[in-house]
Amino acid sequence: MAERTGAAPDQDLENNDKDMWALRRNISDILESHQEPHLQSPAREPLLRSRTNTTSQIALIGANVCPIESLDYELIENDLIKQNWRSRTKAQIFQYIFLKWTFALLIGLTTGLVGFFNNIAVENLAGFKLLLANYLMLSRKYYLAFAAYASCNVVLATAAAALCAYIAPAAAGSGIPEVKAYLNGVDAHVILAPSTLFVKIFGSIGGVAAGFVVGKEGPMVHTGACIANLLGQGGSRKYHLTWTWLRFFKNDRDRRDLITCGAAAGVAAAFRAPVGGVLFALEEAASWWRSALLWRTFFTTAVVAVVLRALIRFCRSGNCGLFGKGGLIMFDVSSAVTGYKTDDLLAVIFLAVIGGLLGSLYNYLVDKVLRTYSIINEKGPRFKLLLVMAISLLTSCCSYGLPWLAKCTPCSIDLKEPCPTIGRSGNFKNFQCPPNHYNDLASLFLNTNDDAIRNLFSTGTGKEFQVTSLLIFFLGVYTLGIITYGIAIPSGLFIPVILAGASYGRLVWTLFSPIFEIDAGLFALLGAASLLGGTMRMTVSLCVIMLELTNNLLILPLVMVVLLISKTIADIFNKGVYDQIVEMKGLPFMEAHAEPYMKHLVAADVVSGPLVSFNGVEKVGNIVHALKWTRHNGFPVIDEPPFSDAPELCGLVLRSHLLVVLKKKIFSSERVLSGQGILTRCKAFDFGKAGLGKGLKLEDLDISAEEMEMYADLHPITNTSPYTVVESMSLAKAALLFRELGLRHLCVVPKTPGRPPITGILTRHDFMPEHIMGIYPHIARCK
Amino acid sequence: MAERTGAAPDQDLENNDKDMWALRRNISDILESHQEPHLQSPAREPLLRSRTNTTSQIALIGANVCPIESLDYELIENDLIKQNWRSRTKAQIFQYIFLKWTFALLIGLTTGLVGFFNNIAVENLAGFKLLLANYLMLSRKYYLAFAAYASCNVVLATAAAALCAYIAPAAAGSGIPEVKAYLNGVDAHVILAPSTLFVKIFGSIGGVAAGFVVGKEGPMVHTGACIANLLGQGGSRKYHLTWTWLRFFKNDRDRRDLITCGAAAGVAAAFRAPVGGVLFALEEAASWWRSALLWRTFFTTAVVAVVLRALIRFCRSGNCGLFGKGGLIMFDVSSAVTGYKTDDLLAVIFLAVIGGLLGSLYNYLVDKVLRTYSIINEKGPRFKLLLVMAISLLTSCCSYGLPWLAKCTPCSIDLKEPCPTIGRSGNFKNFQCPPNHYNDLASLFLNTNDDAIRNLFSTGTGKEFQVTSLLIFFLGVYTLGIITYGIAIPSGLFIPVILAGASYGRLVWTLFSPIFEIDAGLFALLGAASLLGGTMRMTVSLCVIMLELTNNLLILPLVMVVLLISKTIADIFNKGVYDQIVEMKGLPFMEAHAEPYMKHLVAADVVSGPLVSFNGVEKVGNIVHALKWTRHNGFPVIDEPPFSDAPELCGLVLRSHLLVVLKKKIFSSERVLSGQGILTRCKAFDFGKAGLGKGLKLEDLDISAEEMEMYADLHPITNTSPYTVVESMSLAKAALLFRELGLRHLCVVPKTPGRPPITGILTRHDFMPEHIMGIYPHIARCK
Repeated sequence: MAERTGAAPDQDLENNDKDMWALRRNISDILESHQEPHLQSPAREPLLRSRTNTTSQIALIGANVCPIESLDYELIENDLIKQNWRSRTKAQIFQYIFLKWTFALLIGLTTGLVGFFNNIAVENLAGFKLLLANYLMLSRKYYLAFAAYASCNVVLATAAAALCAYIAPAAAGSGIPEVKAYLNGVDAHVILAPSTLFVKIFGSIGGVAAGFVVGKEGPMVHTGACIANLLGQGGSRKYHLTWTWLRFFKNDRDRRDLITCGAAAGVAAAFRAPVGGVLFALEEAASWWRSALLWRTFFTTAVVAVVLRALIRFCRSGNCGLFGKGGLIMFDVSSAVTGYKTDDLLAVIFLAVIGGLLGSLYNYLVDKVLRTYSIINEKGPRFKLLLVMAISLLTSCCSYGLPWLAKCTPCSIDLKEPCPTIGRSGNFKNFQCPPNHYNDLASLFLNTNDDAIRNLFSTGTGKEFQVTSLLIFFLGVYTLGIITYGIAIPSGLFIPVILAGASYGRLVWTLFSPIFEIDAGLFALLGAASLLGGTMRMTVSLCVIMLELTNNLLILPLVMVVLLISKTIADIFNKGVYDQIVEMKGLPFMEAHAEPYMKHLVAADVVSGPLVSFNGVEKVGNIVHALKWTRHNGFPVIDEPPFSDAPELCGLVLRSHLLVVLKKKIFSSERVLSGQGILTRCKAFDFGKAGLGKGLKLEDLDISAEEMEMYADLHPITNTSPYTVVESMSLAKAALLFRELGLRHLCVVPKTPGRPPITGILTRHDFMPEHIMGIYPHIARCK
Repeated sequence: MAERTGAAPDQDLENNDKDMWALRRNISDILESHQEPHLQSPAREPLLRSRTNTTSQIALIGANVCPIESLDYELIENDLIKQNWRSRTKAQIFQYIFLKWTFALLIGLTTGLVGFFNNIAVENLAGFKLLLANYLMLSRKYYLAFAAYASCNVVLATAAAALCAYIAPAAAGSGIPEVKAYLNGVDAHVILAPSTLFVKIFGSIGGVAAGFVVGKEGPMVHTGACIANLLGQGGSRKYHLTWTWLRFFKNDRDRRDLITCGAAAGVAAAFRAPVGGVLFALEEAASWWRSALLWRTFFTTAVVAVVLRALIRFCRSGNCGLFGKGGLIMFDVSSAVTGYKTDDLLAVIFLAVIGGLLGSLYNYLVDKVLRTYSIINEKGPRFKLLLVMAISLLTSCCSYGLPWLAKCTPCSIDLKEPCPTIGRSGNFKNFQCPPNHYNDLASLFLNTNDDAIRNLFSTGTGKEFQVTSLLIFFLGVYTLGIITYGIAIPSGLFIPVILAGASYGRLVWTLFSPIFEIDAGLFALLGAASLLGGTMRMTVSLCVIMLELTNNLLILPLVMVVLLISKTIADIFNKGVYDQIVEMKGLPFMEAHAEPYMKHLVAADVVSGPLVSFNGVEKVGNIVHALKWTRHNGFPVIDEPPFSDAPELCGLVLRSHLLVVLKKKIFSSERVLSGQGILTRCKAFDFGKAGLGKGLKLEDLDISAEEMEMYADLHPITNTSPYTVVESMSLAKAALLFRELGLRHLCVVPKTPGRPPITGILTRHDFMPEHIMGIYPHIARCK
């Protein structure tokens, strides 16, 4: 085994024993290296250390820090896998394709069902709570009503928070940033675990039903991804449920595809927007995309749409308790004739500009609040619970207290609905008002978020809401939305932003209604679009989601204009909210473009040694030592005389593959090419990647001192086609290669002859701005 | 200059003169090589030769063969460009971004205007023609009516064909395959020329107005791309209109982005579907995609939508002749209540399966017809004209003759429209029928294609069309659609397929209407979707386009199911129609995935010599010779002693950059590093890529015999960061690298030390199946 530093390569390649000593001496150096960490517990340390140079780094949010592992989308080409390709029958290929589609179907079905269950549960829980409060209000027991309302909320909130704090801390928050990071190649293990799935579903129901200003959309995306991961994981070894035909998916590429489908299915189930779901996955979630995947994702969301449609039809006959009204389209405003003239564009542009500013302010404040909360949350589960309770009480106070500020509005005569509202549903809450009057603010605050949005979007209702009520509601939800995100419950960002945006749109409408003849509902919709554009920074997917939410194609050009303007304005100030959270969580996200300063560096500038490499036929003891004392996941394999004329790079061998060979003890007592042993005794599937850190660990091995002196032929498990760059390759182009091909390791080879055949390995962390600026502080200064 | 073969590298690197002789001796070999051709006239020869091994190759279609050039999306990093980066001011960067968006705006504006002009021209020309025929029919002058109708058609068709045959043969056909190939990196120069743009616009108007079963959608995509190319080209050197601020776009990457925007704008203008346009560009047209581009494309199509909406409003007051009715949505069926039950899915699945079969049959027949027509078209423009005339007469006979087969239907009393139709528009053509009767087949055939589709899609009209009429119409348009594509007029495929599909859908409806209660218009829509899915094989974009065409969101799940099934069925039999045409035209299209057999080959297996390389400081004479006697576009530059300790790969120099240095005569009389001369005398923009083969040519140079003996320092113009693969890299992974990064040249470096630092260059052609199977015929047999 040879150990070298990138900068001063050790030319003495023959003396293995000496090198072995060198290794032992340098153990501490190696541990200090920032090479890609393995999944074991100390894994995040190097990352965090490499980030200490920047000032803005804070502790990970969500309190419980989870180990991070990079994913590898590179095609591993070793002799064993090649043998497997050759022996692959047509039936097996067909089976593989069939399974992929079956899984897409299953993901769609399950996500659709879960989304539907979520809907029913929320509507019934929240509905019961509101009915109770309403009943007590009618009998003028105002304090009792508040007590009942607030305690219902606190109980639901605490239940959700307890699940989150004690069972799966990773389930807190939106989940979209984590899914996005996973699809970029960063696996924070717990994030897609079954426990997370369980808590995400029930925590989200509790959180939304508790009246928080949170949505179920982000959590649905996360839920979809968890379902996909669970299905694709291939059973559970723990419960002896290992389905052999699932071995096909035991690699990062196929899992990534499944999880992309899951994320799309989540959006489709949350918004009942199948096309929007596909586009969301494409534009926001996924980092790599293939047209075959587009099609499969499309299939998944189609299944979701069909399932939801059938179930919603079933519920119309009153089988689902308080859930029952409404069709597939959540906020149908297609009936409205929404004419607008070219002059109206001025008002729309004004709306979009301010919306963009409000959106970027939202992101800024969410960031600050998250950083504050993370300090509280880190103190332990109890503090998490206390925070949730406090916010829940505050929310209850706002929703119940603020409507008292509103004046009572007399019911209009030409209304089709009963006014004031009887029972739970309906837009005209009586609240404290005399008969035949309604409290417009109560109709917004004391309603489910979905109903409030529907009220605001409804057309021809310009005079239904007073300006002061709208202003109070806007300020209320804008603030509550910001301070709610970050507490220990699953919480989506879409609904808060739509709520604030819709009330903001109506406010702008009241400003312009004397000048322009334009509908208030339309302005509410455009306001929502502008705030969404300002926070999420998506374009096509938001546009299609808005379209599928409202079923009004005629407003499409206006929505496009609004989104373009608000995104442009907001982009001047900060990043999109999901990108911001990814950055804050310290996940090493690879951007699609290279940073400008990377053009002035070359690959060798960021490679840092020491590099641990193996011989083609290596002593078992050396392998075990290297695995034990480094956390590297890939080791270069170098053929040396007598196996080649001169030292040459044979390829790259993975830690997980080495562990399988060590476990199976395929050794020979002589230093000879004994690769045939592996080829006959192993199958490619033995080297499949296990899910969720269930892979072999070094501690599982039991190797005798005698075996330590034997040799293992690494050739059959060496990936002979690793991607390489010359050390003088510009870092920008190396980063592009790394990102576009979804690599985990990129070998750096020397430019000049007569040196060892590899000078270092680049991993994801080497491309992170924090790492580069740590080495070259002047870049940070120039920036 | 060193000349080596990939297989047996010449180790003698010092003796340049000897090598020079070797070069002269091997000139014929070099000419025989299949290295990437330059743009000059013999350019396509190597491609064609390399393809002769396969049996299915036929001559290029469109008769006039145009030179093909590969595009290079790699970032060139040489000293000159690096110098430029460093000196770039913030104002310049802002200017660049501003220009990109301005161009997106301009493309949207222009394409919107052209699309609108196209609409008005077609509606007025075709409207006048149909009015004339109608008038003559009313006075029972049947033969005269036919004569007038047919001669109008022939005149319009001949005009369009004459434009096509004599001015711009490249404008014939849909244009989508060529745009798709361009965006994949294959530039067939004439395809985006101004003359092509001119002919495409007017030819398309003539063709559609002439009553052919062709659409304006494909041509609009091509038009959009041409407009984008023209705008992005940076003025015309010929007319001294070179705008210096356009120098930013003088590279393939920025042009590709502009043309993607143009293609999206084309779809948006043709279908008035802005989101559909973006998705079309994303799913079908573009091979590379970035989220920044998504946003810019979205902006372009938003501009198109706003422009169209404003112009259509303007026309409503009758300012545009016969064009005036209708809104932004072409076939609005949102008013229809389209309920469907889960049982109805059976009928829909049946429809989709047969639709998929019909779609793949369509593709098969289009392929056969194209191959037949290409033989006729190659004989010369006159034959092209004759073919167009023949098809025009046949079309006229069909549209005028077939309605005589239909029975007259009495007008229903509860119709809202006048029956029979008065004037041009309207769905109830009187034709030969007695008063108060209408001929349903004439209402389909003797109408513009758009109106016929609107008739078929209209809901609640199950009894308006007879089964025999629908059958005749379906067979008529299905056949006419197939035999019309390939004649020398701009012709889109969308409208023929939608027409055939809609009538097919209604036919299936008559089959199922006794069993299921489902709307005939809905079935027409689903029929169109199924046939589109079966021919085009798109998913999300078709879905959104259908949505934007019809404004009926409720049918979305059904459309998704239909598209999925029909695409799956059709994919069993053949490729999508555009892929088929790309293949038939012999354009070297790089697929996103590597073929399975590539896994069994390595990069060195397909590299074929001889390789021509330069020294870092090279004799001018050698450069001129190499440029003259090879058609290579990239040459490796190798540093040799005394400039380095051992031969090492310095990088890659481009033909176009060499020509600039030769033109500027930046030579030195000694063999020394004189690169500073280039850095001071040139700017990066001098090396920008000229448009449409306008770049410097070798013939433009005038180099004296004395200068031939001087030296040029190639270092400042050498791209020092070319992507490289080791010769033992599997071809599949090399292909992935090549495709994902949009390369033109991929350097193959040796695995073992002590050999020359480069063994060959892979270009697009080396990855083509025809080339590989030419070298390894057994692969073709195994396949």
